[in-house]
Amino acid sequence: MSAAPAAARRPRRYDPGRRDRLVDTALDVIAELGVTAATHRAIARAADVPLGSLTYHFGSLTELLTAAFTRHVDTVAARFDERMRAAPDRTAALDTLVEHLTGDLLGSQRDLVLAVELYVAAARDPALRAVTQDWMSRSRRSLERHLDPVSAREVDALVEGLVLHSALSTDPMTADQIRSALARLAG
Amino acid sequence: MSAAPAAARRPRRYDPGRRDRLVDTALDVIAELGVTAATHRAIARAADVPLGSLTYHFGSLTELLTAAFTRHVDTVAARFDERMRAAPDRTAALDTLVEHLTGDLLGSQRDLVLAVELYVAAARDPALRAVTQDWMSRSRRSLERHLDPVSAREVDALVEGLVLHSALSTDPMTADQIRSALARLAG
Repeated sequence: MSAAPAAARRPRRYDPGRRDRLVDTALDVIAELGVTAATHRAIARAADVPLGSLTYHFGSLTELLTAAFTRHVDTVAARFDERMRAAPDRTAALDTLVEHLTGDLLGSQRDLVLAVELYVAAARDPALRAVTQDWMSRSRRSLERHLDPVSAREVDALVEGLVLHSALSTDPMTADQIRSALARLAG
Repeated sequence: MSAAPAAARRPRRYDPGRRDRLVDTALDVIAELGVTAATHRAIARAADVPLGSLTYHFGSLTELLTAAFTRHVDTVAARFDERMRAAPDRTAALDTLVEHLTGDLLGSQRDLVLAVELYVAAARDPALRAVTQDWMSRSRRSLERHLDPVSAREVDALVEGLVLHSALSTDPMTADQIRSALARLAG
C-alpha cells in the first residue's frame, strides 16, 4: 500500500461535525454490509474521507463500533423511555409495551438489522457488551417505572425473545398473543 | 478474472462426501468471518475446491446458507429434544431447561456466534426464516412434551431472550434467577 499524501493524512481538526457524520456513516455501512465488513477502510470509503481522518477520530475498530451502536441504542432507548414515562398506570404501560414491540421494534427493517448486528458484534467482541449492557439497563429502568426490578428484568428478556421470534418467524404471534404473554410474566 | 481450467470446472460427481464437507466448511467460514462475508468464493477457497464444484452443489447463496444453518439447527434441536424426552416430569423438565440454557447454549462461544449469525442472515434474507421457523417449531414441540402449546411458545421466546441477555451482559442473571423466571411463565 502506498502512503497517502500529507494533506490527506492530516486530520481536519476544525470540522466539528465530521465525527458525528462518521458515526452515521458507520451505522449505514453496518446496516448495509454487516458488522464484520465494517472496517475502518470500508467506512472511510463510504464517508469519502481519508483513512487518516477516521483513525484520528476512532483509534480502534471497537471504539468506532461502540460509538455507532451507542448512537443507535440512544435513539431506541430514549423513544422507549418517553413512551413508558407517558403511560399513566401499569395497564396502560402494558398496552404501550405491546405497541412499542409490534410497531417500533418490528416495524423497521433497519432497526431489526442493526439490533442483530449489535448482537453479532457483542458476541464476537466482549468489549461491545458495554453497549448491550447499557441498552438492557436503560430498558429495565424504563420498565421499572411500572414494574418491580425482578419483573422488569424478566419482562425485558421476554420482549427480546418475542421481538426476535416474531421478526424471524413465518407464522408470528398476534398482538393479542404477545400481550397475553407479557401480562402473564408482568403479574 | 481468468477462466478456470476445464478439469477444475468439472464437478466431481463421484465424491459423495464432498457436499457434506462443504456444509461443514460453510459453517466454519460463517463462525469465523460472519455470514455477510460467507460468499461462494470465500467458502470454495476455505474448502480448497474449485468454485464450480461449490456452485454445482449449491446454486444460490440462500441454498448454501440454508444447508449450513440447517445442519447447525439439527444438532442443537436434536440435543434439546433428547433432553426434554428424558425428563420424567415438569419439574425435572424445568431443571433440564435451565441446565440446557446455562450449559449448552451459554457454554459454547461458537454456538452463540452461529445463532446470532443465523438471526442476521434471516433478518436480511426472508428465505432464511424457513430455518429459524423450523428451529422454533422443533424447540416448541420439545417443550410441549411437558407444557401446553401456548406456554411452550411463550417459554421458547423467554429462553431466547434469557440466552441473549445473559450472553451479551456484563452482569448476567444467575441460574436461580433464570429458573425463577421460567417457572413463573411456565405456570
